[in-house]
Amino acid sequence: MTKFELFEQIKKKESFLCVGLDSDISRIPKHLLKFDDPVFEFNRQIIDATLPYTVAYKPNVAFYESRGSKGWKSLERTIDYINKIAPDVFTIADAKRGDIGNTSKMYANAFFVNMDFDAITVAPYMGVDSVTPFLEYKDKWVILLALTSNIGAADFQLPRRDFSEALYRFGIRSTRSKALYEKVLMTSQAWANEDKIMYVIGATKAEYLAKVRVQIPNHFLLVPGIGAQGGSLKEVAQYGINRQCGLLVNSSRGIIFASQNEDYAAKAASKAHSLQKEMADLLRIHKLI
Amino acid sequence: MTKFELFEQIKKKESFLCVGLDSDISRIPKHLLKFDDPVFEFNRQIIDATLPYTVAYKPNVAFYESRGSKGWKSLERTIDYINKIAPDVFTIADAKRGDIGNTSKMYANAFFVNMDFDAITVAPYMGVDSVTPFLEYKDKWVILLALTSNIGAADFQLPRRDFSEALYRFGIRSTRSKALYEKVLMTSQAWANEDKIMYVIGATKAEYLAKVRVQIPNHFLLVPGIGAQGGSLKEVAQYGINRQCGLLVNSSRGIIFASQNEDYAAKAASKAHSLQKEMADLLRIHKLI
Repeated sequence: MTKFELFEQIKKKESFLCVGLDSDISRIPKHLLKFDDPVFEFNRQIIDATLPYTVAYKPNVAFYESRGSKGWKSLERTIDYINKIAPDVFTIADAKRGDIGNTSKMYANAFFVNMDFDAITVAPYMGVDSVTPFLEYKDKWVILLALTSNIGAADFQLPRRDFSEALYRFGIRSTRSKALYEKVLMTSQAWANEDKIMYVIGATKAEYLAKVRVQIPNHFLLVPGIGAQGGSLKEVAQYGINRQCGLLVNSSRGIIFASQNEDYAAKAASKAHSLQKEMADLLRIHKLI
Repeated sequence: MTKFELFEQIKKKESFLCVGLDSDISRIPKHLLKFDDPVFEFNRQIIDATLPYTVAYKPNVAFYESRGSKGWKSLERTIDYINKIAPDVFTIADAKRGDIGNTSKMYANAFFVNMDFDAITVAPYMGVDSVTPFLEYKDKWVILLALTSNIGAADFQLPRRDFSEALYRFGIRSTRSKALYEKVLMTSQAWANEDKIMYVIGATKAEYLAKVRVQIPNHFLLVPGIGAQGGSLKEVAQYGINRQCGLLVNSSRGIIFASQNEDYAAKAASKAHSLQKEMADLLRIHKLI
């Protein structure tokens, strides 16, 4: 999918919602366990119910992989189903992959060829040759981890306060030590442009979105951390929205596990619908629709 | 497996070789394609033939994942086979995983519970809560990426020369900017000790091994990059060996694709045997056997 087509979908559905399919078999409603593939059945009903309100689906690969080859089968069925009933929806394999070139090439084959996802999340630790094999597919996307929504983001991604303070004592202000996430944003722009790369910027770090937008005004950002992790949608839009929206805001558990009863799909639709209405308001405020 | 047991294996086999099962279906001998599961059959014969010379096997998960649920089945069969015929061998899932806590927990379940690997490679980008779920299993290991063997290692892992030079111009030598890989070594030591964590240090960066040993004298290192990637075994031992060996040196393509004919397993054994003999000499030089 191209950036233009994604923005068209956002305007049409008045939504920049991504539904995270973290479909944990231990948390799905018990009545589904009678199906041959309970996780696929769970996803199918969630997808049917939430499709009017969302522009993207993001299966979290770990939840499939944790069930071995059977889980992979559920993942394959899920992406096939989405591509069949809703070819205009943007699909993200949340896989956080990344390895030496010949190995990343294999991962790209798994997610872009065999399963035909539009995008995959990639960890940047191993640098250029771990990412570029994913960039060789037309209209496919790399969503590179930059500033994630979890506590551990402070370990390596954020500025090293002690070091900056040491510099400050020497009276050096201009030579500020760049944070790793800023270096990832800067360096990766040489690998591909805003039509091939998006970045993960966590909603729990909304104050950083304004800084990120100075560095990358035009890129799309995948923003996790709304809901269960505590981020605010309004703040995300305030600091992160751009002229083509530039945001995909993910919610997983808050939508798909809204109910653990037989009404789970209707409850998921209702949660997705409220987020969509909030997003429509924000798109209007920012004069994008 | 404990560190003690691993060292016992190393002394018994006079080897610190790890055989990488990067079993690319497009590169395995053609006569195997008649089997139901050609990749498992390929691995089975490689394992039978190389077992006397190696203390570890490391399937590269991407090569299985690239074949979808069928590939996962081959991976499951491979680890089951190793655990059945050689429970004393150390097994590494080369998966480069790492995500927020609840997700890493799912990956840990996939590789430590369902498949019973001894170790998994993990990317440190997302910090503490992306790694600790893997550390909660008794006698299981995290092998954390520190300094990898590929070109892209220079992008984020290595020191930023421009910045160090800027500091130097200000006459500041002592406040050297720590490289990311050094920060990973330092920070992760608070998460678990040398009985739970190993580190990936590429053989193509042998000159760094001496520096790494100052920081972590006692940890085991998984060293890729021998063979196809050009690293030297002698240099790796010179700078990296410690009193419990502390090294697992991996070779993948150089062993498993030594021949593409029906004699492939015998040729793989012969390659593994030469490396083992070289390693035995190095273990003797360093008075470990």
